[in-house]
Amino acid sequence: MNYAGRQTKLRAALGASRVDALLVSHLPNIHYLCGFTGSAGVLVIRREERGAKATFYTDGRYAQQAAEEVRDAKVVIAHKPALAEACAGLSRAKVRVVGFETQLPYASYQQLKQILHAKTRLKPLPGLIEELRIRKESEEIEQIRASVVLGASLFQTALSAIRPGVAESVVAGEMELQARRAGAEKMSFDTIVAGGLRSALPHGRASSQAIPETGFIILDWGVILAGYCSDMTRTVHVGRVSPDHRRMYQAVLEAQLAAVDAVKPGATTGQVDQAARRVLEKAGYGTYFTHSTGHGVGLEVHESPRLAKGQKHKLTPGTVVTIEPGIYIPGEGGVRIEDMVLVTDSGGEVLTPTTKELMTL
Amino acid sequence: MNYAGRQTKLRAALGASRVDALLVSHLPNIHYLCGFTGSAGVLVIRREERGAKATFYTDGRYAQQAAEEVRDAKVVIAHKPALAEACAGLSRAKVRVVGFETQLPYASYQQLKQILHAKTRLKPLPGLIEELRIRKESEEIEQIRASVVLGASLFQTALSAIRPGVAESVVAGEMELQARRAGAEKMSFDTIVAGGLRSALPHGRASSQAIPETGFIILDWGVILAGYCSDMTRTVHVGRVSPDHRRMYQAVLEAQLAAVDAVKPGATTGQVDQAARRVLEKAGYGTYFTHSTGHGVGLEVHESPRLAKGQKHKLTPGTVVTIEPGIYIPGEGGVRIEDMVLVTDSGGEVLTPTTKELMTL
Repeated sequence: MNYAGRQTKLRAALGASRVDALLVSHLPNIHYLCGFTGSAGVLVIRREERGAKATFYTDGRYAQQAAEEVRDAKVVIAHKPALAEACAGLSRAKVRVVGFETQLPYASYQQLKQILHAKTRLKPLPGLIEELRIRKESEEIEQIRASVVLGASLFQTALSAIRPGVAESVVAGEMELQARRAGAEKMSFDTIVAGGLRSALPHGRASSQAIPETGFIILDWGVILAGYCSDMTRTVHVGRVSPDHRRMYQAVLEAQLAAVDAVKPGATTGQVDQAARRVLEKAGYGTYFTHSTGHGVGLEVHESPRLAKGQKHKLTPGTVVTIEPGIYIPGEGGVRIEDMVLVTDSGGEVLTPTTKELMTL
Repeated sequence: MNYAGRQTKLRAALGASRVDALLVSHLPNIHYLCGFTGSAGVLVIRREERGAKATFYTDGRYAQQAAEEVRDAKVVIAHKPALAEACAGLSRAKVRVVGFETQLPYASYQQLKQILHAKTRLKPLPGLIEELRIRKESEEIEQIRASVVLGASLFQTALSAIRPGVAESVVAGEMELQARRAGAEKMSFDTIVAGGLRSALPHGRASSQAIPETGFIILDWGVILAGYCSDMTRTVHVGRVSPDHRRMYQAVLEAQLAAVDAVKPGATTGQVDQAARRVLEKAGYGTYFTHSTGHGVGLEVHESPRLAKGQKHKLTPGTVVTIEPGIYIPGEGGVRIEDMVLVTDSGGEVLTPTTKELMTL
């Protein structure tokens, strides 16, 4: 990955934001800028070190991992917490304006204020690196494609595992073991297997409940492969499908196709959301679509942009998003269908290779 | 669980901290106080509502889950983000001093300041609920015991799966599937399976690397059962054990037993850490013990107290901690042994039922 090129772009953004250095504390952003995948560390990028290296601070537990992973940054193994060590360095250098990311916990923000030189000013810079990450490089798109294909292969595992009486959790476990066998690092989030009435829970993490004799089963899962996430949802049905259930499924499918169709460079994320929402409203399910239509995917399974009501962000080629409308009727059940879609020069390319026809098991 | 009792204790602490209400945003703390296990919501506890109910704010995605899970709190399904809705309520009520938790992201803190009534003062209250959570109730201890026993049962699965040539990740996947079969909700953290030279990584998450012909394999895992976490580590050996490796293992085992022995009411967490550290220093491995000796376990796998160098927290009966010294020699390998230990009235009870003899496979 082109870490040096990303750092150069970020330095330009720091200039525009009038800060002299940025303390990068959000781990996926650290991963993006220097390759480190561990769970403790801080990266400092200074505006004027053009061509020079950023500095990555971590502690002794990550010394070996940092040596193996970090590229285009000097590694410092700190004896105090990485954030404190990084601040001490900025303080010694009397850097005037230091930017920080606003995911930073309040407690760490207070720490910064205490450690930094009295003449140093702190400036919150929300979303600076997240903005850069929206448009994927071609190497990233290849990794995402591979992650999507691996993720999609688990649908077959799920179909083989789903039988009335089997715990949702065991279906998830079979998918997760298969993911690991196929080379995934891990799942990109807690696998959702929500059967029968539980399918009306938009976030129905696989539970100990058994797959029922009849009803919808929502399966929502993804993997991480070489750092990149995938995310997909399919809803299957066990037992006889009532006309009402068929109508629910058809409405979600049409909404999903309409939103996929709306994906193109220049379209706003709000317009894509609206395309799905309009179909479900027309079909009488508007109030049962209780979430947004999608989100960006990359090093994080949920990242910018958000595809939600009223959002003004304009899609650009190289952006990868999910399209995942759903309806959830308490006491009845739910349906969600989700693909990952790449914004191309002329429209949207559906990356998820899996059929969306209603499957009955 | 006795949510009302916990809220009463918290209200007393709010009085002592001179705040009129607390915005609880840290999800495990929300779980502790009202039972909600979803991933978005805010709980507001007011000091003077003695006997009355707290208020829990979440959004439409969690309406059904909140209705099923939340106890001893009024549920409000917000149409704006839960934090904004909660602040609007406090603002309308002209509450004077509002406490907040310092894990709160800086961006949310800024939001609070903007939404709250101009006359409302914000006061950071770090660790208030975490402090209450240290001493487990008897019902919690029973849940933790069950989680530890379920977790320990996976060691057998690991032993059956470990063979030279099998990917670490597949060993982890087999353990995780078995955890789900046995009724676990999920793992309490990313399973660590680190073989051969990778065992020198204290945080060697299971990778695609194959189990080698010879060397240490560190296995570190835990499950969540009914909300409560377990956490344990065993190190096994494949192939012939060299005298050096036997000496390493023996030193860690002695350090672990010494630290377990030091657990008793009134002992400081720093003293327990020192008990392990002293043994490893005497054996010449001091510089290779690069982390702390342990941590509390409960609703979170890492919670208060920390068992680290110089810590002054005094152990009390009902506290559950890990004891997990290790040594990590780059280019050679590593060993860690970890049990969960309950502080009793007279000492420490090792909860983990698994042998610590060196196993060679």
